[in-house]
Parts: sequence; C-alpha cells; structure tokens
Amino acid sequence: MENFSVAQLGALSDVAGKVFMKEQLGLTGCEISISTIDAGKTSPFIHAHKQNEEIFIFLQGSGTFYIDGQMLPVKEGSMVKVKPAGKRSLKADDKLVYICIQAKENSLEQATREDGIIFDEEVSW
Amino acid sequence: MENFSVAQLGALSDVAGKVFMKEQLGLTGCEISISTIDAGKTSPFIHAHKQNEEIFIFLQGSGTFYIDGQMLPVKEGSMVKVKPAGKRSLKADDKLVYICIQAKENSLEQATREDGIIFDEEVSW
Repeated sequence: MENFSVAQLGALSDVAGKVFMKEQLGLTGCEISISTIDAGKTSPFIHAHKQNEEIFIFLQGSGTFYIDGQMLPVKEGSMVKVKPAGKRSLKADDKLVYICIQAKENSLEQATREDGIIFDEEVSW
Repeated sequence: MENFSVAQLGALSDVAGKVFMKEQLGLTGCEISISTIDAGKTSPFIHAHKQNEEIFIFLQGSGTFYIDGQMLPVKEGSMVKVKPAGKRSLKADDKLVYICIQAKENSLEQATREDGIIFDEEVSW
C-alpha cells in the first residue's frame, strides 16, 4: 500500500458549500473541510464539539466569526482556534473561502523536530 | 479562560519560509504550518515522521511533490496526505504557497456529526 493519497480540488474559491476530505484522503488524525460562504450569508447554526478542537484558516474574503457572544473580524490570513466547548458561527461580508481542521484536543504528542526523521539522500529532480 | 485564540497572518503568499502556529494559537490536536517556496527552489531535505500523518494543502503556485520515489504534480487545490513513513520533499516551479498539518495517526475518534453539538440559539448579527 502506498504511503500517500491525493485529491485535486481545483480553485478553492469554486467549492460549493463545504467539502469534507477525511473519506477521500483516508485521514486518521484530523478531519479537514474546505468551505465557501457567499457574501451576506451565515453558517446554518451555532455549534460546539465534544472532543475536537477546530482551527479555521481564512483564505479569501471577509466576515465575522462569532464565538461565545464575541464578534471577531476575519479576512485572508486570519486563523482562529476554538476549544471544543466554544459556541461558534460565521457570517460572510465578502465571499469567504476557508479551511477548517478538526483534531482531538490534546492528541498531539510531538511534532516537527521531535517527530521528524531527516534523510541524507537527495532527490533527483 | 476564553475558548479561542486568534492570529492574523495577512496575505499568506507573503509568508517568508515557514511559520508554525502551534505555540501562537495553543494548538493541542495538530501542528499547522504556512509555507512558501520560491520558484525553482526545493525543501531543504527529504523527511518522514515517527507518529504523525501530514496533509499538504496547496493554495497557490505549482510544483512537484516527491514521495517515496514518485513525482506528483501539485497546484492550487491539490491535497496530499502522507502516512508517517512516507519519504517526502517538494519543489516549486511557480512560487508555492501551502499549508501543512501534522496530526497523530489514528488519533481522531469521531468528527462532524458524531462530535458536533448544535444549538437552537440564533446569533444577533
């Protein structure tokens, strides 16, 4: 079995609504979704989570992130991490394009230098 | 303590090299980095991981993803999930802008419908 899987989504701003990638890519450590919200529209509801923290990465557009009664302005380059209990929703002013990552709170044991293995070989590009 | 943390990175194509977000956002379920590789440049080495799967999401540019001796073309909207053992590297043809997520393999127990809690309240936007 190969060590990788690939998806080609094309322009992320062309995603209609929300696309979840866990099944397609065989993800086992997190769920990743790519979403758009048209200008003037909102998320369909306020939600929270049981186990998972969520990280929102905004790629295009602008809007407001509602979290526990507070309103945060978001735009390209905004990242919001929400603990499971946070009650969250979203509104787009200009069409929002964003990535959302769900991962189990406190599940990461090590990363980067501690988790990485570096090889001496070179790629023949 | 609030249920959220926020970072404002600005235009992601302006990131110089690689920015890790775990410390700044207090991430506990994954590490997220935002990276750019200038045209004609490559990752500094081939690497693999001990525990973590990685997901690469390409936002801009084009290039080649090296994985276990295979060469995959990548561009905006390409997503590549790599198991810990996969030996990986990257080359940019046009300047690449991408997000990389590290999460512990098999750490996700439930997501989305199983993990979510939906509230009846409405936001006063």
